[in-house]
Amino acid sequence: MSTDARTPCDEVIEAGWIVPVVPHGVVLADHALVVDGDRITAILPRAEAQARYAPRLTTARPDSVLLPGLVNAHTHNPMILMRGVADDLALMPWLTEHVWPIEAAVMSPAFIADGCELAVAEMLRGGTTCCNENYFFPDVQAATYRRLGFRAVVGLPFIEFPSAWAATPAEYFDKGLEVRDNYRNDALVSFSFAPHAPYTVSDASFGRIRVLAEQLDLPVHVHVHETAQEIEDSLAQHGQRPLARMDRLGLVNERLVAVHMTQLTPAEIALCAERGVSVAHCPQSNLKLASGFCPAEALRRAGVNLAIGTDGCASNNDLDMFDEMRCAALLAKGVAGDATAMDAASALRAATLDGARAIGLGERIGSLEPGKQADFICVAMDAIETQPMYHAISQLVYATGRQQVRDAWIAGRRKLADGVLVDMDVASLLTRAGDWRARIAAVRPGV
Amino acid sequence: MSTDARTPCDEVIEAGWIVPVVPHGVVLADHALVVDGDRITAILPRAEAQARYAPRLTTARPDSVLLPGLVNAHTHNPMILMRGVADDLALMPWLTEHVWPIEAAVMSPAFIADGCELAVAEMLRGGTTCCNENYFFPDVQAATYRRLGFRAVVGLPFIEFPSAWAATPAEYFDKGLEVRDNYRNDALVSFSFAPHAPYTVSDASFGRIRVLAEQLDLPVHVHVHETAQEIEDSLAQHGQRPLARMDRLGLVNERLVAVHMTQLTPAEIALCAERGVSVAHCPQSNLKLASGFCPAEALRRAGVNLAIGTDGCASNNDLDMFDEMRCAALLAKGVAGDATAMDAASALRAATLDGARAIGLGERIGSLEPGKQADFICVAMDAIETQPMYHAISQLVYATGRQQVRDAWIAGRRKLADGVLVDMDVASLLTRAGDWRARIAAVRPGV
Repeated sequence: MSTDARTPCDEVIEAGWIVPVVPHGVVLADHALVVDGDRITAILPRAEAQARYAPRLTTARPDSVLLPGLVNAHTHNPMILMRGVADDLALMPWLTEHVWPIEAAVMSPAFIADGCELAVAEMLRGGTTCCNENYFFPDVQAATYRRLGFRAVVGLPFIEFPSAWAATPAEYFDKGLEVRDNYRNDALVSFSFAPHAPYTVSDASFGRIRVLAEQLDLPVHVHVHETAQEIEDSLAQHGQRPLARMDRLGLVNERLVAVHMTQLTPAEIALCAERGVSVAHCPQSNLKLASGFCPAEALRRAGVNLAIGTDGCASNNDLDMFDEMRCAALLAKGVAGDATAMDAASALRAATLDGARAIGLGERIGSLEPGKQADFICVAMDAIETQPMYHAISQLVYATGRQQVRDAWIAGRRKLADGVLVDMDVASLLTRAGDWRARIAAVRPGV
Repeated sequence: MSTDARTPCDEVIEAGWIVPVVPHGVVLADHALVVDGDRITAILPRAEAQARYAPRLTTARPDSVLLPGLVNAHTHNPMILMRGVADDLALMPWLTEHVWPIEAAVMSPAFIADGCELAVAEMLRGGTTCCNENYFFPDVQAATYRRLGFRAVVGLPFIEFPSAWAATPAEYFDKGLEVRDNYRNDALVSFSFAPHAPYTVSDASFGRIRVLAEQLDLPVHVHVHETAQEIEDSLAQHGQRPLARMDRLGLVNERLVAVHMTQLTPAEIALCAERGVSVAHCPQSNLKLASGFCPAEALRRAGVNLAIGTDGCASNNDLDMFDEMRCAALLAKGVAGDATAMDAASALRAATLDGARAIGLGERIGSLEPGKQADFICVAMDAIETQPMYHAISQLVYATGRQQVRDAWIAGRRKLADGVLVDMDVASLLTRAGDWRARIAAVRPGV
């Protein structure tokens, strides 16, 4: 009979440093994180953990920083199969001559499933453990994320025009709600409404989305104020800026995840702060498409919740949240004209907890706290590229490359172990990616 | 007796794709590069290379892109030992409260030698094969780069104030010229004059540098127009903007490598184009220190030679030229408000050939052409992060991480083979980096 008075648990991860995100800016040296089931049960000094817990598995990472998995607050993951198919183009020729013709030719459940799977592989290898998805075929997306054990908020797409997913506005609503119903209370997959943008959604449809979002308690994920042209067109068509129009329709509230937001007046920033809006800032997409500069630091200072997203791979061209976080921190300083803007700890919080808050998961993920879901990563700091190391958070934000991500867990399950995707068939995945490459290149012989 | 009619050579590298940079924008599929001694002797289809050459060694890289090694056009490499020691600070507190006190405590030949060695390891692993260095103790730098077989242009530092390297202006000149004399005709190490900045160099000293640079045929590497404050101060002190003052002193010419250049009028851009000035653009440093936005696309369109640099690790915080090249391409579009600005091929040329031209090495390196030095890298494209692949150059600029660099050669000698630094003692290097960390942390107990 065992006399072990220690508390049994599933796993203890001992790390050189733990960055829990809450409390803000804290680095815990030589600590351990205790996991039982799908949850974090404790964070404490390593020696104390050894005295108090009897884990089934102990993972030692003395050279790594353990931190929450990154949350990608805006992506179109299946577009990964179009990575770099057309670059250095203005928005309209990029869309009309490249993206849309390709989508018209290949859009299908198989395209979505393979795209999501390749994206999950890239995200896990790069330390992202949750994404806010926005694309067609949410049914296929949800099935793929569930099958792969990846945490995702799947957008229920809405646009006034027919697509391969739905033919009429009514069908977008019906099919979307059905998908959501099929995954009610899923442990990993939740949903948002994802009306495309103010310029592709009517007042009536926005009104219906507002009502449904309230009834079902879902976020509303929309591209808003992406370009100056969008503002001009809205003024011409509606006599209002898009955000003012959305406010008239009752959508400017704590459910709104407003993506891009490069064009903002001080009054609009104040409105967003007052209403509890979240902004999903996509710095590299905004730069690459020359959409404008999101006033990230002004939003933060006003108290707006700022999250970070990569946008889709057709415009970025990756799902690298480490690179995106660094770019957000650097660009915020340049745009604000203030080197103290968006410091490293704030950038890391934007890429974790504030992203989770934006998409309705702030109580469950985004920081390392007892009771929260066990979604976290270990990042090796012993490489030449991160030596010497003075501050773990500075190193994570300003020097770390995503290849230093060594391990990733979602809901307590290891998804990446020592750099290996433990439950994915990478060879098959790369073969399928090659097949899609051939099909897409055949659509566009110039490619 | 051999009847082999093939031409003997040292090495043939067969690559899935070769991007020679000259001609511009070209991708050669399934080609081979032939090396003999320290030079490239041919680039031709793989099958043809097999028929015509009898190499001592054949290296097959069917999944890789072979391209010129990247040229870092502005760095302070020994500052790598201060990587991330102080972030998110305005320039003056950063310098006066952090960088300068640390430098005062640790500056020494050993600090320079270890810093350069760690930097070489990071640069080679990240695909950089040449740097334009700007720091103290050029004698130690030159000895370290020569010993490690790394190609560098070492700046002969000049500042009106005493430092650990020299006590008086005369001593800066005397010691600098002696170093240059000791390495005359070195195969890998060459020199520039590196007066710190207009605000720390007198008219008399600039005048002497102009004369010496002409006599010795050396580039002049200077921080110019880094911030708006610099312009204001110069107007107050000299009644001229710094570039106008340098023009009066005869320094605005094809020798000038003007670093940063965030503050430029159209007339100044035209002047730089007319005189053949090179600009070393450091986008991440400019963002992180909130120095301003270099009008990179306007410079390029005016015909100014645009190179790319990382700046030092105390302000960046890495020597990652892939990240810097991507940032330059993205930021150029954002600043120009034009998504077609600085396309991928132009960004790659800025990070290779145009960097080489800036520092006086355009005839020797920066592109893959017969007769040029064999400085090149192979970048693996088979990873999840760069699949599918439509365009090799797009992938290199917008999706590739430096960890995908698999091999690097300098002057025909392999320096990185399958990710391994072939002639460096990495364990010893990391131990020394840790020792410097401890010494610097002791200077600043808060660290």
